[in-house]
Amino acid sequence: MTRRTADALKFSRSERDAVYRAIFERRDVRRNFLPRAISEPVMMRLLTAAHHAGSVGFMQPWDFVVIRNAATKRAVKQLFVEANTEAARRYTGLKGDLYRRLKLEGIEEAPINLCVTCSRRRGGADVLGRSTVRATDLYSTCCAVQNLWLAARAEGIGVGWVSILDHHALKRVVGVPKSVTILAYLCLGYVSKFETAPDLEMAGWRDRIPVNQLIHYDAWGSHAYEEERDEHENHEGVHQNGRRGKDKTRRRPTGVEGQSSSRSLRHRR
Amino acid sequence: MTRRTADALKFSRSERDAVYRAIFERRDVRRNFLPRAISEPVMMRLLTAAHHAGSVGFMQPWDFVVIRNAATKRAVKQLFVEANTEAARRYTGLKGDLYRRLKLEGIEEAPINLCVTCSRRRGGADVLGRSTVRATDLYSTCCAVQNLWLAARAEGIGVGWVSILDHHALKRVVGVPKSVTILAYLCLGYVSKFETAPDLEMAGWRDRIPVNQLIHYDAWGSHAYEEERDEHENHEGVHQNGRRGKDKTRRRPTGVEGQSSSRSLRHRR
Repeated sequence: MTRRTADALKFSRSERDAVYRAIFERRDVRRNFLPRAISEPVMMRLLTAAHHAGSVGFMQPWDFVVIRNAATKRAVKQLFVEANTEAARRYTGLKGDLYRRLKLEGIEEAPINLCVTCSRRRGGADVLGRSTVRATDLYSTCCAVQNLWLAARAEGIGVGWVSILDHHALKRVVGVPKSVTILAYLCLGYVSKFETAPDLEMAGWRDRIPVNQLIHYDAWGSHAYEEERDEHENHEGVHQNGRRGKDKTRRRPTGVEGQSSSRSLRHRR
Repeated sequence: MTRRTADALKFSRSERDAVYRAIFERRDVRRNFLPRAISEPVMMRLLTAAHHAGSVGFMQPWDFVVIRNAATKRAVKQLFVEANTEAARRYTGLKGDLYRRLKLEGIEEAPINLCVTCSRRRGGADVLGRSTVRATDLYSTCCAVQNLWLAARAEGIGVGWVSILDHHALKRVVGVPKSVTILAYLCLGYVSKFETAPDLEMAGWRDRIPVNQLIHYDAWGSHAYEEERDEHENHEGVHQNGRRGKDKTRRRPTGVEGQSSSRSLRHRR
């Protein structure tokens, strides 16, 4: 490898750390928005970052509707209120009390709302790489959202993904054609601070799952580390997705999606 | 804002540039893999980065099956060959010739294959934020993939997403339970170089769409810049998704998903 190739390839330690910083300090933001406007050049950097996600067959199926209009935001906020009133009914007792205290959107506080769509037919009938999994265009668009989310963090801009919206009604508000799928509705703005952990974790709604519980080696159910199971209710059901198919995990003992119920700390490798 | 808060908030210019560098230099890699192993600590950094994506209701629906086993890779490669033989039939003539010359996977060359899944039922029946759009758990998992993809770029590790696979057959090979959705099958390894543009762009399969064509302001179809339309066939159909609903874009003239057919360069704002 020539020196030049190596330089072009390698990130310095500080560059690498910056990428991880963006990843670990990115938050789903619903509060602390400042009224400060996002300038056109900054907005273009964010959207260009989104546009440089990979996409199946290079179809680039995304569009971005940048919403600054207060009336549109107000209409979307109303859609949120309707959908959230319905959603809140699912939670009763203490969980219901907690749910109603959560702040789940910053639609009107955020200087910019961004509606990210996916045009399912862009690129024609036969998009390269989409023959087996048609939803890969949606997946590509999600990758674009994550690019934007991380770029925004590096710019000091908070992004919140508001999912509690009726997308059919939202299409009418934003004027999105019926044939186009709304993928995400995001709220963007500079913030006074980024929280140090996800809101739902800080509120006690749910805990972070230890990452080792989610890593399998060579086949589903083979964990490198069989750690003490955490009895916390939030971790229960991590691997309780029900019936398995007639696959090779059948041969394993028990229970929780093919995971051994062993409690011993065991290093496989 | 105290000094400390400001420091905790702000990325330096070089940190910001590093994040954009990862975003713009990330590639979907199918070649140039080196046999060099990815160490356990590096692999854990990548998976921890993935695990720190946001997720709807903080459900963290993902699992990661790390595949090093040559026999498993060989079986997956066989699935690719079958699916790709079928997919190639869709392309004839020059496009067919080009298609058959493309390298679309690096399953056996990559030291690590990674199967990323989404457990649709993790977190129980009522996942916060998923009442209106059930697929948000899949979307969250895509965000995790993008985190990993960018972290890998910063580590000098190439990642290729192989989508031309029958996921039902793939589940049997990897032992993934029927109830769990396979989201992505990735090939990971250190590479001798990263290409400067997407493979499909370099091969002339499709061009990058100018980002301005994909940005709308306040409502679908309102573009800030009405640029010269590029007549290149790859851009045709960018906004030809067919019929619109009875929404306000109806009031706009024509044609291409509500976009004006004006050819003039016009700044709206």
